[in-house]
Amino acid sequence: MALIVQKYGGTSVGTVDRIKEVAKKLIKHQQQGDDLVVVVSAMSGETNRLIALANELHDRPYGRELDVLLSTGEQVTIALLCMALEQQGVKANSYTGSQVRILTDNSHNKARIMDIDDTKIRTDLAQGNIVVVAGFQGCDEQGNITTLGRGGSDTTAVALAAALKADECQIYTDVDGVYTTDPRVVSEARRLERITFEEMLEMASLGAKVLQIRSVEFASKYNVPLRVLSSFTEGGGTLIATEDSTMEQAVISGIAFNRDEAKLTILGVPDHPGIASKILGPIAKQNIEVDMIIQNTGHDGTTDFTFTVHRNDYKIAYEILEQTASSLGAREVTGDDKIAKISVVGVGMRSHAGIANTMFESLAQENINISMISTSEIKISVVVNEKYLELGVRSLHRAFELDKD
Amino acid sequence: MALIVQKYGGTSVGTVDRIKEVAKKLIKHQQQGDDLVVVVSAMSGETNRLIALANELHDRPYGRELDVLLSTGEQVTIALLCMALEQQGVKANSYTGSQVRILTDNSHNKARIMDIDDTKIRTDLAQGNIVVVAGFQGCDEQGNITTLGRGGSDTTAVALAAALKADECQIYTDVDGVYTTDPRVVSEARRLERITFEEMLEMASLGAKVLQIRSVEFASKYNVPLRVLSSFTEGGGTLIATEDSTMEQAVISGIAFNRDEAKLTILGVPDHPGIASKILGPIAKQNIEVDMIIQNTGHDGTTDFTFTVHRNDYKIAYEILEQTASSLGAREVTGDDKIAKISVVGVGMRSHAGIANTMFESLAQENINISMISTSEIKISVVVNEKYLELGVRSLHRAFELDKD
Repeated sequence: MALIVQKYGGTSVGTVDRIKEVAKKLIKHQQQGDDLVVVVSAMSGETNRLIALANELHDRPYGRELDVLLSTGEQVTIALLCMALEQQGVKANSYTGSQVRILTDNSHNKARIMDIDDTKIRTDLAQGNIVVVAGFQGCDEQGNITTLGRGGSDTTAVALAAALKADECQIYTDVDGVYTTDPRVVSEARRLERITFEEMLEMASLGAKVLQIRSVEFASKYNVPLRVLSSFTEGGGTLIATEDSTMEQAVISGIAFNRDEAKLTILGVPDHPGIASKILGPIAKQNIEVDMIIQNTGHDGTTDFTFTVHRNDYKIAYEILEQTASSLGAREVTGDDKIAKISVVGVGMRSHAGIANTMFESLAQENINISMISTSEIKISVVVNEKYLELGVRSLHRAFELDKD
Repeated sequence: MALIVQKYGGTSVGTVDRIKEVAKKLIKHQQQGDDLVVVVSAMSGETNRLIALANELHDRPYGRELDVLLSTGEQVTIALLCMALEQQGVKANSYTGSQVRILTDNSHNKARIMDIDDTKIRTDLAQGNIVVVAGFQGCDEQGNITTLGRGGSDTTAVALAAALKADECQIYTDVDGVYTTDPRVVSEARRLERITFEEMLEMASLGAKVLQIRSVEFASKYNVPLRVLSSFTEGGGTLIATEDSTMEQAVISGIAFNRDEAKLTILGVPDHPGIASKILGPIAKQNIEVDMIIQNTGHDGTTDFTFTVHRNDYKIAYEILEQTASSLGAREVTGDDKIAKISVVGVGMRSHAGIANTMFESLAQENINISMISTSEIKISVVVNEKYLELGVRSLHRAFELDKD
């Protein structure tokens, strides 16, 4: 008998019929002898409906009252799911974040979980109940309702699994697992049976949008085995867990990519200490997030400095950089918003030489020019012309034999 | 500076624009120097929407999970109203029933308020906040969400006013007060400035559906001055309070009526002790509510026994009564579902003789035959043929000079 925490997102509980389906799945699972704690999101569309109401009443809805409003979304779902379970003769109890209680700090709209009281849940499980918990929400020390911000329901599920020392945290979503790359780009893309937390973090941040990064970090920190599964099809999904020493790890787990970036270069900057912060400081001040940063060894007392930003921020970043260039006495600013980033990710990289070389050779064979390179311990990223994205991803997927089991 | 509890029903907060109107009203009121605690219902239509969802998932939604579901309705309204207030630069804090906390027993769907903790509300008021509380809901000792059943938001408002020792509890609704009778029947009907709790209870139970009886009882018990006002028009409404000894009380306050009843008579029942319970027991067993009951002094060892029920229950009640008649050896059962009840209500009745006579004379002058009479300390009710309802009410309204100030 295992203790399993399951999470169903907004699409999985988007209609009354889908809620019935989830109830059936849960009952089947419980009959196999497992204890179940279920975290649900608001029915898809509900959060947007509530935000639309708020926008009609306030220029910029935020803070305490927005949390009071939005938290009703999940509260509706927990009640409906329990009714569906009770209709099938299965005992179920629902809990809001405040009721559990899931204690958070008081940062409304983006609260962090501090502590979870598992007393009620354990009592309920001991009595044979399925326990249904509202995702995305908690309350602070004073009992004010808080919400966890984007991906909050995943975080709730992982945090509950950690608090309950659950055997597994299963995230039901509309994809059936983590793939070696996007199947829409490479038809041979293969679902991974298993991937490490570190790889998943690199994949997620690079655009494989299966799980919210925060919940993966959380699961990694508390070593909660995390499984991504489809609500709509059968299958074992992908298990995200710590590195498994008993089996040979694949060298490369997947190819991630991102076409939302733009690059900016400031040429011929006087090469003094502190130049990086002088260039990026004004960018950060405008709340523009910077992804890759590359500075090559200078010569003649000057250097070239390149970084990438989200494509939407390209224009503003360019203007800021031109002002910086003139105040620093740099030679020129150039930029390109038709770029794409491709990354190979894999913990096996740590113990295998020649990964970078295989990558560069593979791209060279396709005549794809690399304009930037950046590496981490388990990832190599390159920036190429946007038009080569699909070609590059496909050639790398083949080169690292990701289509083979 | 007074402390006022106000309550706005579903129609008053039925749209975003109406919520804005309520916010404006509140701000204007606060600027006059009063402390405000505001109780709101779910936006009109919202509760029905939620119940429809529940009905799709359960044959008979009830209990704990129904309360979790329905309580979201008011939670949405409190957040939206606070946002509307904050948008106007006014500080406001919302509270669900659990947050206040409004402690109830654990009778889900029809809970009774046991205690209200006023700590948070008092702190907020002291800081200049408008406090917005979700009506209709509370929580039990274990923190389970409960709802108060029909008219629950009125009850919340009165209970809060009692707990806070508020100067007045103002119920905003879609009528502008309590009238001497229904203005749709008597165009000269006049809004009452003031009415006693006792009169209001008699009026309410007789069909003047302005306030839920339960909230009037509550207000009477804790001596909370209650005022009914319109959300949509200006005016002082009607104050419902204890008898005011300083002013001459009108003899009659109003004429109530009810056309939803039917009467049943069992004739020639052997006149033994316990006969009433033998007749009404089987009726009560079917959950049929009985209103008026009349038994006249018998003769020849038999008596006639008459009672009224809701018109919808007439057929079943008739069938039950026929069985009872045969088992008791009664002579006959008769009935009439084309009746109406007219009542004159007034605390002045206690100290004035001749009220009944004025009533009967007035009806006689219009050739209206009275088939049943029932009296209480501050009320005289008669049953007449339904077709004479309007004529009877108008003649009584004139006879008691209710059209005059």
